[in-house]
Amino acid sequence: MKPQTSSGMTPFEQRAADARFRMVKERHQKSLETAISEKKIDPLMIPISKFIAQTKEYFTTSTCSGRITLMDLDEKEMKREGAFFRKWHRTVTFKEVWEGICDESNAGNLWFKQDGLVMLLGTHSMENAKHVLDVVHNLGMKRIGINHFEPGKVHIEIFGTHHMSVPVKSGKKVLVEKEYVKELVKLANKKWKMNDATLKKLCATLKKELA
Amino acid sequence: MKPQTSSGMTPFEQRAADARFRMVKERHQKSLETAISEKKIDPLMIPISKFIAQTKEYFTTSTCSGRITLMDLDEKEMKREGAFFRKWHRTVTFKEVWEGICDESNAGNLWFKQDGLVMLLGTHSMENAKHVLDVVHNLGMKRIGINHFEPGKVHIEIFGTHHMSVPVKSGKKVLVEKEYVKELVKLANKKWKMNDATLKKLCATLKKELA
Repeated sequence: MKPQTSSGMTPFEQRAADARFRMVKERHQKSLETAISEKKIDPLMIPISKFIAQTKEYFTTSTCSGRITLMDLDEKEMKREGAFFRKWHRTVTFKEVWEGICDESNAGNLWFKQDGLVMLLGTHSMENAKHVLDVVHNLGMKRIGINHFEPGKVHIEIFGTHHMSVPVKSGKKVLVEKEYVKELVKLANKKWKMNDATLKKLCATLKKELA
Repeated sequence: MKPQTSSGMTPFEQRAADARFRMVKERHQKSLETAISEKKIDPLMIPISKFIAQTKEYFTTSTCSGRITLMDLDEKEMKREGAFFRKWHRTVTFKEVWEGICDESNAGNLWFKQDGLVMLLGTHSMENAKHVLDVVHNLGMKRIGINHFEPGKVHIEIFGTHHMSVPVKSGKKVLVEKEYVKELVKLANKKWKMNDATLKKLCATLKKELA
C-alpha cells in the first residue's frame, strides 16, 4: 500500500495538486484585478472579492450582489448574449422600469426579474469546502453546493433564494398595466433588500471564517 | 502512518461509514414506500425513485417533477406550511388558474409560479458523487451540487432551471387582468414542457449511469 495523505492522495499527487491550486488561484486573482480596473465587476462585490483573493486557501471565480433587470430572453426563455436590456444592482424606481418597458428599441421577450446573490468560490481541499458548506448552512442559506472537484481544485456555488421573474412585453406589445408595474417595483425592491441583508451576513461570516 | 483506503479513511472508519450508508439507504427506501402507498409522492417521480432505490449505491431523499402553482407566500415571500393554494404537476388551463386566483377563500399574497424539477440524491462516496456531477453536467444541466457530505453519506441536489414567479393577488385584490393571465398560462405551460423534456433526459441518463 502506498503512503497517503489525509486527502487519500500520495505525497507526489498532493504536491502536484498544491501546485495546480496555486496556479489557478493566481490566474483568478489576475482576472479579478482586470475586472476591477475595467469596471467589469459588480462594485458591491469588490471588497469581499478582494478579501477572498488575499486569503491563502480561497478565491472567487464569479460574483454578483443580486440584481433587478429587464431581460430580453430568447424563445426558450433562457439568458443569451446581450440579454440585459436594463440592469441595476440596487433598488429601482417605477419611472426607470416603465421607461425601459416602453423603450421601442426592444421588441423581444422582455422579463422583469429580480435575482439573488451569486458567489462562486474555489478552494483546494474538501475539508475547506466542508467548512464553507457548514458556515453558510448555519446562516440559514440553503442554495449552496460543490459543483465540481478534482485534486487541488474544489468549486463551491452559493446562491440567494429571493427572486421574481415576470413577463412584461412580447414583441412590441406591453403586457402589463402601469399600476401593476408599480406593484412589481415595490415587491422587487423588497426582495432586493432582503437579499442585501443576506449578502451582508454572508460577507461578514466569510471574512471571519476564511481568514 | 495508518493504512488507508482510497477515500483517506482507515479500514475501521470505512466499515463504519459503509454500515451507516446501508442504514440510511434502508431508511429512505422505507420512507419512499410509505410515500407511494400514502400517495404523498409526485406520481411522475415514482418510476425513477423506485429505480434508484433498487441500485446498490444510491437513494433519493426528495423529488419533484416540476410544478405549476398558486402559492400563498408570507410577508418575506418565502414558502410556508400550507403555501400551496393550487398545485399541478402538469400543464394547466386558463380556466383553472383564473378560478384559483378569484377564489375568495384566499386573501394572502398569491403568486403564480412555475418551478423546475428537483432531485435530491444520496450516495456513499465522493467518487460516486463525482460520477453524478459529470453525467448531469454533460446533459447541459448546471444547477447541481454536493450540498452535504460526511464519511459514508454524500447528498447531491439537482435542480431544473426553468421557472417563473409572478405576483397575482394581494389580500383580496386581484392584481392581474384576464388577458395577461392567459399569457402567463401559455408561458408557464411552455416552460413546463421544456422542464419535462429535461426531466426525461435526466431520468434516462440516471437509469443508464447509476445501474
